[in-house]
Amino acid sequence: MTRPHTPTLDRVAGPADLKALSDADLARLAHELRTETISAVSETGGHLGSSLGVVELSVAIHAVFNAPHDKLVWDVGHQCYPHKILTHRRDRIRTLRQEGGLSGFTKRSESAFDPFGAAHSSTSISAALGFTVARDMGQATGDAIAVIGDGAISAGMAYEAMNNAGHEGRRMFVILNDNEMSIAPPTGAMSKYLSGLWTDTPLGALKDMAEGIERALPGPVREGARRARQLVTGMPGSGTLFEELGFTYIGPIDGHDMDQLLGVLRAARARATGPVLIHAMTVKGKGYRPAEASADKYHGVATFDVASGAQKKSVSHAPAYTKVFGQALTDEAARDSRIVAITAAMPSGTGVDIMAKRFPARVFDVGIAEQHAVTFAAGMAAGGLRPFCAIYSTFLQRAYDQVVHDVALQKLPVRFAIDRAGLVGADGATHAGAFDTAYLANLPGFVVMAAGDEAELVHMVATATEYDEGPIAFRYPRGEGMGVAMPERGLPLEIGKGRIVREGTGVAILSFGAHLSECLVAADALEARGVSATVADARFAKPLDTDLIAQLVAHHGALITVEQGAEGGFGAQVLHWLARTGRLDRGLAVRTMTLPDRFIDHASPARMYAEAGLTSGDIVATALGAMGVPTLDSARRA
Amino acid sequence: MTRPHTPTLDRVAGPADLKALSDADLARLAHELRTETISAVSETGGHLGSSLGVVELSVAIHAVFNAPHDKLVWDVGHQCYPHKILTHRRDRIRTLRQEGGLSGFTKRSESAFDPFGAAHSSTSISAALGFTVARDMGQATGDAIAVIGDGAISAGMAYEAMNNAGHEGRRMFVILNDNEMSIAPPTGAMSKYLSGLWTDTPLGALKDMAEGIERALPGPVREGARRARQLVTGMPGSGTLFEELGFTYIGPIDGHDMDQLLGVLRAARARATGPVLIHAMTVKGKGYRPAEASADKYHGVATFDVASGAQKKSVSHAPAYTKVFGQALTDEAARDSRIVAITAAMPSGTGVDIMAKRFPARVFDVGIAEQHAVTFAAGMAAGGLRPFCAIYSTFLQRAYDQVVHDVALQKLPVRFAIDRAGLVGADGATHAGAFDTAYLANLPGFVVMAAGDEAELVHMVATATEYDEGPIAFRYPRGEGMGVAMPERGLPLEIGKGRIVREGTGVAILSFGAHLSECLVAADALEARGVSATVADARFAKPLDTDLIAQLVAHHGALITVEQGAEGGFGAQVLHWLARTGRLDRGLAVRTMTLPDRFIDHASPARMYAEAGLTSGDIVATALGAMGVPTLDSARRA
Repeated sequence: MTRPHTPTLDRVAGPADLKALSDADLARLAHELRTETISAVSETGGHLGSSLGVVELSVAIHAVFNAPHDKLVWDVGHQCYPHKILTHRRDRIRTLRQEGGLSGFTKRSESAFDPFGAAHSSTSISAALGFTVARDMGQATGDAIAVIGDGAISAGMAYEAMNNAGHEGRRMFVILNDNEMSIAPPTGAMSKYLSGLWTDTPLGALKDMAEGIERALPGPVREGARRARQLVTGMPGSGTLFEELGFTYIGPIDGHDMDQLLGVLRAARARATGPVLIHAMTVKGKGYRPAEASADKYHGVATFDVASGAQKKSVSHAPAYTKVFGQALTDEAARDSRIVAITAAMPSGTGVDIMAKRFPARVFDVGIAEQHAVTFAAGMAAGGLRPFCAIYSTFLQRAYDQVVHDVALQKLPVRFAIDRAGLVGADGATHAGAFDTAYLANLPGFVVMAAGDEAELVHMVATATEYDEGPIAFRYPRGEGMGVAMPERGLPLEIGKGRIVREGTGVAILSFGAHLSECLVAADALEARGVSATVADARFAKPLDTDLIAQLVAHHGALITVEQGAEGGFGAQVLHWLARTGRLDRGLAVRTMTLPDRFIDHASPARMYAEAGLTSGDIVATALGAMGVPTLDSARRA
Repeated sequence: MTRPHTPTLDRVAGPADLKALSDADLARLAHELRTETISAVSETGGHLGSSLGVVELSVAIHAVFNAPHDKLVWDVGHQCYPHKILTHRRDRIRTLRQEGGLSGFTKRSESAFDPFGAAHSSTSISAALGFTVARDMGQATGDAIAVIGDGAISAGMAYEAMNNAGHEGRRMFVILNDNEMSIAPPTGAMSKYLSGLWTDTPLGALKDMAEGIERALPGPVREGARRARQLVTGMPGSGTLFEELGFTYIGPIDGHDMDQLLGVLRAARARATGPVLIHAMTVKGKGYRPAEASADKYHGVATFDVASGAQKKSVSHAPAYTKVFGQALTDEAARDSRIVAITAAMPSGTGVDIMAKRFPARVFDVGIAEQHAVTFAAGMAAGGLRPFCAIYSTFLQRAYDQVVHDVALQKLPVRFAIDRAGLVGADGATHAGAFDTAYLANLPGFVVMAAGDEAELVHMVATATEYDEGPIAFRYPRGEGMGVAMPERGLPLEIGKGRIVREGTGVAILSFGAHLSECLVAADALEARGVSATVADARFAKPLDTDLIAQLVAHHGALITVEQGAEGGFGAQVLHWLARTGRLDRGLAVRTMTLPDRFIDHASPARMYAEAGLTSGDIVATALGAMGVPTLDSARRA
């Protein structure tokens, strides 16, 4: 692969080097930075479109502000590749999202230039306000700048933060990176006027002058500017939501015009006394034709050929769990008109887009609004519908109180389809679905399932459909299934009943969820070591199949529980029951294999599970240890 | 006690009886309903002020709408006493918040007229939208009406719901019960005009006409009306935030004027085709002089004398945990200028008002905004401050993802002061702090403590102050401490070290948190039964004091863990460790005493713990069972 020619970028190791560059050099730098970003992501895959949209913003912010003394907080953080290149990480940019390489998000432990990491959305304004208060209380930190997208700023959390920041009235900066608007061209004139004005005019006078200018513009341009404000801020006329919340509003400006960006940021930095919102309009995928032409496809990309834009397709061996869920849900929906689906801005990520194609009126995308999503679903359940609330494990954390207070306490039959359970690969620790079993299985009345394979997932969708007595959840991992034979139609499982998958006599391995295949591999390996192993698929963390567990402990020398989740979940439920029923009193070699008590950095899921101590080899070693069979490891330790 | 004379109310068993009443009768009914509410709450205590504010609203809604076919959702639900009297529950209204009596909140299991219960704020619009969709999809349910206060509607969740409801555009009703505005009188004329207009004019024409009228009003009245809108909606001029979000906005109207209320509700019901927001101005404590004069004091009241308004003071034996925390925090803050405190609209409930009196600039009340509160605190920690985030256990559920994603993943030293841990009494199951130990103790890097008594709490505040390595939480219950001797100054505890409180030989009782006193009572009772008991205070659920636990299991016949929380918490952490280290292999009579797997209805905390099976007697029985000592119970079972 030939690397792009980047003479200006080559002179830049960190933001300090930008101070020596002229504005013209900065524009050249942005051009080279874009080329470098495209080149790097073509080798690694990643969030290309959003990073290309903020190339000029990244350069301008670092040219004008003084990181890491000033605190730059990227919301979500998946648009940070140009920022990483500019902040002493260019040498590692081609390790993005690879094991041992740079994170695909901002990360405190990676660099002082990432003062507040992210991956979930809408947190940046809260964090920036925190830094601002610290600065005002004498800590050695400068200005805080939050950069947040138009989707993220619509979440309740961002609203709460703006509300509070406006009330506090402290000097801070929010840059609204608005890439949803297709009416950028007609407002170009207006944004030029506004940014020009701003740089030459004292703060107080700006708003009045801007309004004067707006009135003086020719009709169509004026209308375009108005529409821009309305679409973004929800407000007609002169006031914006941001102004009402106490911010000085500047915009919209062209987020790809270095002169506008530099002028506005310099003026804002020089003069702001309170919170300022700068509204920059950008284009996702800007400057790379295949990305601009298909913003959606280039949100997260595989490795690709720069010249053609063709992405390398990975070979799939089995259908992805997400697709299996989407299809199974659609099949059930075709039979039952009470089924509805709810997603929080992830229709394709969760697979409910499959149902939406066939039943568009029964799929509700509520935006980045998990709290509302869950209580909305609870209302629908109370109203007699059968809602499936499809939210990733890690994002369902956003709605935990709604799960407890609105769903569990009221015993409402909301179905939770929990995708991305367990470790997820390149998205790393922030996206791991580690805690859902633990935070759901101790809620009274909840049914909590995990799919052992993709056929089981189909049956669990059917089970959830039929179950009207209360809340029910089923979790399944990211990625492909096992390639098992698929049932023609899902059949409801008996609530609280697991199954024996492999019969043995020595050790019992009780799997909860998609690690079932690892357990089966481990059982074969144990057999080869002369230890006969039973493998059972618990299916339910709640209610537990206590008959099954009683039988396993009665007839085996040891019990190993295995789950793709943290302590406090399935294994803990088993232990509590064993303790309660006195089954531990006379001795029981029981081991609970869970995710370890640390966050696991990004790598392939298989490598992450190896790091987590959850390979089939780890299961074998644990089983042998519990059975008192000497192992190489135990010999080494002795 | 003499009961009030209520001839009109006496004819009303349920909402159906309201249909026969004239408007004049309804006004009389409201008057009697207010008297009855005051009389009832004087006997039971409860949320008087908010209930008195919605007397007319309750009558008007039930007169105009058709519950339970129409779905009336009271946000928070603590203002529901008049509603309960009107909906077949007058005979039990004097059992409010008493064991076995009516809940102090709306509750689905209590009545069909409570279609969606609450206790936490800002959920009503989401639920109402859910019912609305169910109606539109053919379920046998009518109109949905959410009644929400001006504080609750400012939370992010309500914003998310309005955003979605406006987008959906379905016919539904939100009544904004606005009792914070002191400018009610000047807007009276305007609100009369508006409500009069509304009742006589087709929907579409209303907005234009209202604006015309507004322009035609005399200056001061017009200004008052404008200011009213701005204060509530954040919007100047003709547009309101609600209109921008897609609602038809009506108001402000006088929420105590039955004619206005009936007129507006009837017209809205007859003509609405999309979402409608009715903005009613009310006075908290309306119609009862002691309450009106002191809205704050009468938010939650003890039993009181109706004539004088004097509340019965309960005799306190020891300082309340909340006050102990507030004072200890203030003491630390006096020594360390980096300490700041954050509360989400609960300064006095959490005790940070004590610090605010001395250091007002270092206490941040962010409003009902727990998500923002936690990430704001994380930002302050990243900026070098020492933030104490003081949130009740049950409300911290609102910010779980922020705790995981912004605090734990980044190892930021945010201090969580978790009040109302365990069962809380009259507020019932919705306010129980049952899950915090479970949802925090499995987060990597978290330190999780619980105070065994109020002196321990002081030391834990000092411990949290000094601890900068990562997040740290300490939980403590509602109510009074044990009356133990208080230290002059808090001394930092060694992280992960518990203590032996009472030495014995037979059974080891390992307490986590404020059930320590019950454990000591149990130990004495065991001694009387000839079983010597050690009692240890674990102090830490994470990191566990594994030396202490190893010693306890090595030298005792049984180990009983006791905590005021659900399964998956402290006891689970102990079990996981015992399993992992092979300590269960050769037999260990271990029992984990936790809250049971069901929600516990309101009663006194002591009675709730009895219901939960967590009295000292239960501990004795469990210990004897684990030791294999026959008990009366086991004899009966045999």
